[in-house]
Amino acid sequence: MDKSPDTLIKNGIVVTVNRNFEIIENGEVAVKDGIIVHAGSAGSINEEAAGRIIDAEGGIVMPGLVNTHTHLPMSLFRGLADDLPLEQWLTQHIFPAESAHINPGTVRAGTLLSCAEMLLSGTTTCCDGYFFENAVAEAVEEAGIRAVLGQGVADFPTPDSPDPARSLDAAMEFVNGWKNRNGRIRPSIFCHSPYTCSAGTLRRAKKAASEAGVLFQIHAAETESEAELSGLDKDASVIKYLADLGVLDENTLAAHCIWINAVDIATLHDLRVGVSHNPESNMKLASGIAPVPALISAGVTVGLGTDGCASNNNLDIFEAMDFTAKLHKASTEDPTVMDAETVVRMATIDGARILGLDRLAGSLEAGKAADIIIINTRGPHLNPMYHPESHLVYSVQGADVSHVMVGGELLVSEGRLVNMDPQAIMSEASEIGKEIMRTD
Amino acid sequence: MDKSPDTLIKNGIVVTVNRNFEIIENGEVAVKDGIIVHAGSAGSINEEAAGRIIDAEGGIVMPGLVNTHTHLPMSLFRGLADDLPLEQWLTQHIFPAESAHINPGTVRAGTLLSCAEMLLSGTTTCCDGYFFENAVAEAVEEAGIRAVLGQGVADFPTPDSPDPARSLDAAMEFVNGWKNRNGRIRPSIFCHSPYTCSAGTLRRAKKAASEAGVLFQIHAAETESEAELSGLDKDASVIKYLADLGVLDENTLAAHCIWINAVDIATLHDLRVGVSHNPESNMKLASGIAPVPALISAGVTVGLGTDGCASNNNLDIFEAMDFTAKLHKASTEDPTVMDAETVVRMATIDGARILGLDRLAGSLEAGKAADIIIINTRGPHLNPMYHPESHLVYSVQGADVSHVMVGGELLVSEGRLVNMDPQAIMSEASEIGKEIMRTD
Repeated sequence: MDKSPDTLIKNGIVVTVNRNFEIIENGEVAVKDGIIVHAGSAGSINEEAAGRIIDAEGGIVMPGLVNTHTHLPMSLFRGLADDLPLEQWLTQHIFPAESAHINPGTVRAGTLLSCAEMLLSGTTTCCDGYFFENAVAEAVEEAGIRAVLGQGVADFPTPDSPDPARSLDAAMEFVNGWKNRNGRIRPSIFCHSPYTCSAGTLRRAKKAASEAGVLFQIHAAETESEAELSGLDKDASVIKYLADLGVLDENTLAAHCIWINAVDIATLHDLRVGVSHNPESNMKLASGIAPVPALISAGVTVGLGTDGCASNNNLDIFEAMDFTAKLHKASTEDPTVMDAETVVRMATIDGARILGLDRLAGSLEAGKAADIIIINTRGPHLNPMYHPESHLVYSVQGADVSHVMVGGELLVSEGRLVNMDPQAIMSEASEIGKEIMRTD
Repeated sequence: MDKSPDTLIKNGIVVTVNRNFEIIENGEVAVKDGIIVHAGSAGSINEEAAGRIIDAEGGIVMPGLVNTHTHLPMSLFRGLADDLPLEQWLTQHIFPAESAHINPGTVRAGTLLSCAEMLLSGTTTCCDGYFFENAVAEAVEEAGIRAVLGQGVADFPTPDSPDPARSLDAAMEFVNGWKNRNGRIRPSIFCHSPYTCSAGTLRRAKKAASEAGVLFQIHAAETESEAELSGLDKDASVIKYLADLGVLDENTLAAHCIWINAVDIATLHDLRVGVSHNPESNMKLASGIAPVPALISAGVTVGLGTDGCASNNNLDIFEAMDFTAKLHKASTEDPTVMDAETVVRMATIDGARILGLDRLAGSLEAGKAADIIIINTRGPHLNPMYHPESHLVYSVQGADVSHVMVGGELLVSEGRLVNMDPQAIMSEASEIGKEIMRTD
């Protein structure tokens, strides 16, 4: 092993999230050229040789969190309207606000705001789909977060694609513009849903995504009325419809998957579709409860997402973990489902897997990118500590994250953003918010 | 109005939680001799005359949160065992740990740890029931939190009452020892449950509580098997049983109330029983989902609680608010239930009401005790802000609390405890935790 790492993180409880979920009580992680060269017991690395030492001060060192479903610019609509029937919320608040206020400038501002929030709460990778995704990508790249980003495709006029016939071409231009850059951004195609994209659009979009070798994202089986809205029989299976269209495979991420049956679960497993579970958004919108324990039992890989800020209302994956663990215990009336280890895996390696990034991220193992976070465990709410994974799910809050590194680059240090100016970002978001409020 | 307050909190968004839920955008709160003398628009108070000025810097100023159901010393068992069947969790982990490790010294240590956590996350009033409650009371008094505290009563040997026949006498000694002090502590009787207290014990304890004029607390209808465990028919109503025994009235707090029917809801309303809702504990233990929207519709007053740290695993009422708002939307499939204003009321004035403290606390109104918290809203996760009550429920985390005052005494300033030594408290809790882990 190379004994001269750029960075040595020492004095931590290292939650590796490797195959055996090894936790090293007195552990350290060494990084060289953006890659983890050692994640294990203390004493393997000569401290003198390390370029930079970060003292975890007894805190938890773990892989950065993976948020598998976001609409980043929607942080601008955080709390604009809540507690309303879905239709009223969308048609009277969200759609008008998007129509009036979403443009490349506001998309950039909202994305920077979201990146600041994600980094400060320990998220190092996200998967997004929205309008003007090129502006999203530029802002995410500037923030330094690893991301899979999809330009939205729908068969209706959108703020960035007034002519729906151009929607897929625009999405492919985005893909082609980003696919050969060697940074942290991977482009994707985001077909909004089976009820906003025709069968033909879905087939063409999936074919284009496959040819480009990129992830195909879609909202699927989110609401009870989705089959009917998609032109199917009321009781038809949306998953079967999508499978029959040929859009479901190991390079498809299906968000939500709430209204699914046992056959659908088998289909998702057989076709190796990745599922993004968004408990807080699903609960807040009363969309239903996804059968996550059954999906996991069947061998489907399920990652966690926050969904957009307008239906959550934050981007905190620690909170999503807590909701995930508790929601399914309540819904199945079984306190043993969704144990802490399972949930930590969902928020890290399983999320990376459904984004096609598991060889690169999602665990602390030599050879992987140095996407690492440190949790300050010196608060009363994190003491005593018997089992670190329990605290990660049930007790840690986003604000406990002290350090965040992506690809070896330190982006949060001592709880503060290193490269971003949060005051300027919040100030711009607040000004846009005043305009949005004026027209709400 | 007296123009020379001890303290003026200025430059805040004042969420009064008064009858009309008034929110004052550019507001201030003035305090004199521990009492609120003004909560309203800026400019009413001469700054020069104020003894101390606290600049809320545009943050939210609101009544301190009320946690209506805790077992404070159980913070020592935070994360000791999770994700287990209830019986196994209790009999193999919690009961043995209590039996081996709970004594006045550990109770004091665990209570101080819990008080530190509660204060740092904005809780100014709690309602507790446990063993060695005198040690709880001394620690709570030292921390400065307002509290209703009940010595546990049960018909089985407990760590502090090996002879169950002495249990009620010991509880009354606690009540008598604390009832005439004029501090922030009010004693109470805490009968553990209908399945651990006989009908005779429940009747005698309620009579004693009534004669002493103190709150009677009881766990009620928490699990599906409770009726049977209480010696009733499997399908009998625990609420009817308790009502028939005469233990339910406006000075009774019933924690949980999950397994209740429409008749029970009417009974709770007619008898003016206060209900403590503990969504996170109920979800984590898979106890069931309390019909809170139906209780509130029927006119029952429902406060929020965390329950003990072993089944949550924290004491953060902001998190409890978020869970409350979302859980019932999911369970009723109605996104309009449990709107943000309702949930903020539950966490403040409604909680104070069921503890019998609503004339003293729970809202920012002239004449009430100065139990006030300030939320720092300068984080990316709290921007933009359209509706403060939405942020309080869906976006704020405990760590956003910057200042906490109880009865005019500043206990948290700039996010730090003023009178407590968290390092010493955590260090002692950690040592006790090592002993607990050794025998688990």
